[in-house]
Amino acid sequence: MDHLAAHDVMVVFLALAALLASAKFAGELVKKFNQPSVLGEIIAGILLGPTVLGRYQPTVYALLFPHTGPVALVLDGIIAISVVFFLLTAGIETDLASIFRQGKSALLVSSFGMVIPFGFGFLSAQVFPQFLSAGEGTNPIVFALFMGTALSISALPVVARILIDLELLRTEMGTIVMSSAMFDDLVGWILFGLVLGMMNPRAGTGHSAPHTIILVLSFAVLMLTVGRWLIHTILPFIQAHTTWPGGVLGFIFSLTLAAAAFAEYAGIHAVFGAFITGAAVGESPHLRERTSEHIHQIVTNVFAPLFFASIGLHTNFVTNFHAGVTFFIIGIACLGKILGAGWGARLGGMDLRTSIGVGLAMNARGAMEMILGILALQAGLIREPMFVALVVMALVTSLISAPAIRILVKRKKSVSLKEIVSGDLFLANLRGDTKNGVLQEMCSVAAPLVGNAPERCFRLVSERERVTSSGWRFGVAVPYARVNGLSRPIVAIGRTEKGIDFDSRDGRPAKLIVLILTPDNQSQHDLLADAGQLFSHKEVVDRALAANSFVELLAALNAPVK
Amino acid sequence: MDHLAAHDVMVVFLALAALLASAKFAGELVKKFNQPSVLGEIIAGILLGPTVLGRYQPTVYALLFPHTGPVALVLDGIIAISVVFFLLTAGIETDLASIFRQGKSALLVSSFGMVIPFGFGFLSAQVFPQFLSAGEGTNPIVFALFMGTALSISALPVVARILIDLELLRTEMGTIVMSSAMFDDLVGWILFGLVLGMMNPRAGTGHSAPHTIILVLSFAVLMLTVGRWLIHTILPFIQAHTTWPGGVLGFIFSLTLAAAAFAEYAGIHAVFGAFITGAAVGESPHLRERTSEHIHQIVTNVFAPLFFASIGLHTNFVTNFHAGVTFFIIGIACLGKILGAGWGARLGGMDLRTSIGVGLAMNARGAMEMILGILALQAGLIREPMFVALVVMALVTSLISAPAIRILVKRKKSVSLKEIVSGDLFLANLRGDTKNGVLQEMCSVAAPLVGNAPERCFRLVSERERVTSSGWRFGVAVPYARVNGLSRPIVAIGRTEKGIDFDSRDGRPAKLIVLILTPDNQSQHDLLADAGQLFSHKEVVDRALAANSFVELLAALNAPVK
Repeated sequence: MDHLAAHDVMVVFLALAALLASAKFAGELVKKFNQPSVLGEIIAGILLGPTVLGRYQPTVYALLFPHTGPVALVLDGIIAISVVFFLLTAGIETDLASIFRQGKSALLVSSFGMVIPFGFGFLSAQVFPQFLSAGEGTNPIVFALFMGTALSISALPVVARILIDLELLRTEMGTIVMSSAMFDDLVGWILFGLVLGMMNPRAGTGHSAPHTIILVLSFAVLMLTVGRWLIHTILPFIQAHTTWPGGVLGFIFSLTLAAAAFAEYAGIHAVFGAFITGAAVGESPHLRERTSEHIHQIVTNVFAPLFFASIGLHTNFVTNFHAGVTFFIIGIACLGKILGAGWGARLGGMDLRTSIGVGLAMNARGAMEMILGILALQAGLIREPMFVALVVMALVTSLISAPAIRILVKRKKSVSLKEIVSGDLFLANLRGDTKNGVLQEMCSVAAPLVGNAPERCFRLVSERERVTSSGWRFGVAVPYARVNGLSRPIVAIGRTEKGIDFDSRDGRPAKLIVLILTPDNQSQHDLLADAGQLFSHKEVVDRALAANSFVELLAALNAPVK
Repeated sequence: MDHLAAHDVMVVFLALAALLASAKFAGELVKKFNQPSVLGEIIAGILLGPTVLGRYQPTVYALLFPHTGPVALVLDGIIAISVVFFLLTAGIETDLASIFRQGKSALLVSSFGMVIPFGFGFLSAQVFPQFLSAGEGTNPIVFALFMGTALSISALPVVARILIDLELLRTEMGTIVMSSAMFDDLVGWILFGLVLGMMNPRAGTGHSAPHTIILVLSFAVLMLTVGRWLIHTILPFIQAHTTWPGGVLGFIFSLTLAAAAFAEYAGIHAVFGAFITGAAVGESPHLRERTSEHIHQIVTNVFAPLFFASIGLHTNFVTNFHAGVTFFIIGIACLGKILGAGWGARLGGMDLRTSIGVGLAMNARGAMEMILGILALQAGLIREPMFVALVVMALVTSLISAPAIRILVKRKKSVSLKEIVSGDLFLANLRGDTKNGVLQEMCSVAAPLVGNAPERCFRLVSERERVTSSGWRFGVAVPYARVNGLSRPIVAIGRTEKGIDFDSRDGRPAKLIVLILTPDNQSQHDLLADAGQLFSHKEVVDRALAANSFVELLAALNAPVK
């Protein structure tokens, strides 16, 4: 059997470590600026790829990411598995049932939002194939279909993230946008499968284009009807008769790998099989949340970053950047999507402002355009400048959605407890012995920071305290008040070894005291709800009480809020 | 850049799907017979490998697992990553601090338990190198060191599983065995690194044997002191300033990949770096249980089965099975370990019976012997018959441990609720309107199955009911009684839409009624404790109430008990 030499194994691990570490670092960094982590992950890949590392440290680059030989093949295989796993989770998150629940409006938004940009892309490709970097000697119809597809698919995960951040997910606009984006995703992947099936080199698996179309459609339809029903029937058996969650995890991953293999056999790409499998599995109410949570966390935090960083390895993003092509693509992508989805929303009976909001939300593009771009580049259907333009377009449309909607609907970003706490308001050892003592102590530190008098804050807090007790479970107390004239909300965290009676429901004295003060014109609801979710986990309270420094306190507060 | 052809991608996914699906299926199957799942996973690999599939369906075998070319390389790379991830979790589960807490006894058990089998292996290798399938022209000292190491290392995960199954984990014997096995593991891996460093082909990375020894020892020592301290210091920062658990997961996997790369560079194997990194990371109290749970579940259920199944692909386990070699290896492995660890336990002050128990528990071998065998085979240090003998020895020693200890200390396996419920005792729609009505109804079905009169059972249950209320939270009631003359414990599960007052703590009427009857001479504690843990999860209760069939009920009960 062929084995990797020790040196090759070392390079594979080194390359993966470099990709993952830089992707995660850059992803977390851009998150600090409220940008999606995928942006950072792609930038990390561009830095490690031919654009920067390859240019300035060609020896290091050639060692880490050789273009030929065993290491290149193994990395290619691992990236292929990463993207298959990523699409599995994307599929699991698609909720087919909800699409039909939204009915007419969602279908209108989705279909107009796909047809118009598809038409723009298709027509532009027919008129300016050379300008748009069509590959040498490609079939103009396939190229036009590719361009249409590449412009028309919204990125479900990005759209969901934007709606959650703007607290629009549970509004009418939010549910319609989510359902439309899911429908978009599903139709988009089927289109994607068809276009891939028609690309020349894939036909090397021995299927003709019509044969491929039939295979794609029947696979999607069968998997989402019979397959879905079978999975729904089999899952309880697996859940009942195997170890939990091992049996279910093994089943899902085996099925995904098999579907990926079948999709490749059918002449389309493995990711299509993985996505459809995910959609069929995710539908079953028998899939427990904790099972899918394990898949989700490892895939989005290990395999997805590897894939997104690998995008930057494909080409030089500076020399292949063609401003004209890129701006043209961004222009027709935005115009087509906002116009189409917005028009659909108007027809569905929404007002103009909301319709534009829907258009803006649906405008975000993501992984699918990039995967499609990579495959088209490898198949010779497009040249590098179009690949770069597609990646940039996907990033730009994702980046502008949230700020644009924020301006349109004047939404403020919701604040969370852990964003507001600060080191100077962490009082690790309160001196007071009584409830009023510690409240006075905390107010005296907190009030000056927001231009207020400590006595006034204390009076408001203790008045509020008389109305309802602020003692919670696990030895936590959360006194709060609205204070007129506060410049911003403020949170002080105090600890005391002694334990102070805050009349809590479980009768335990409070050792962790969280003082929340919010401006009068702003509800403290966000912060209180956040505190409520956070401190319902005993582990969080215990860790906060044991924290030796402000960083350890922050670490304790950075817990799952669900 | 070299890319995989569509056909190769298909084969890779197909091979992985076949390995994972068969491994999980066989693993779950052997679990039904109370055997460790790793046995099934290895058998699945032997069936898919040259032994069975390669012999009877050579074309299919050659398609799925080609010996040369890109697919072989990519599969080799993916298996290498799988085993690295597996060793990461093995390392995380090692609790260094507990080793020293146990002090003298653990050190005695561990050191005698390693030195004696090591000596047996070393001496045998010196005396009968040809009989023991030493590779052509290998250094006799390296071969002897290899044999010593391959016989002397206990399998921590197998040992832990056996102790848990026999409910011995929290006994004195259990804690000493666990600490000794951990120490064993740590020393074993260091020995392993040294032996690998001395094998010839690995020296191709340019390091001499003494150089490698220094690298191995300094890496282990530095990682477990300075590295551990650094990780301990950095983790709260990552936890505080990144998204949870993404940042921590990214950090751990990046670090593991980097350590794996370094270990390869140092001339030892990647798994050594991964294990030591896991041990250093797992020590930090800042690693949250839910973070390591995500890693653990995906790795043990997806990557570990891939690795164990791949063992069967390395050689033909029938033609290369040499009975003499295999029995000899099993003999000296068992003799050396039971004698050594048992002697250590006696010296530590344990009685004879417990000492033999310790020896039997420590006798289980596992993954390390197999990984060592694979690497030695690839390096030409041993020939196939010894590889097969080592794999069989690891399996046999693992399999005999639990039954042998059970005979020795006369432990019964503990029973769990989900093992006892049966379809004929699932009453989906109780007719009764009152507490006594439903209890009578349930007793009338349950009692005859265990040779008892319904009236008598009902009387005992309702007497017990008068003493303490059996209404629990979430609408669950768990009436129970000890019944003299019952042939076995029995559990009946009844449901009622109406809701019946069982005087529960949260005031809610009971809709799910779980009747537990146990023989007089047996405590019902196991079953009650099991029910208590199970029904503390609201999700479990909701799913049990919504179950349409007995299988769905079983699926609901097969939930995490922690």
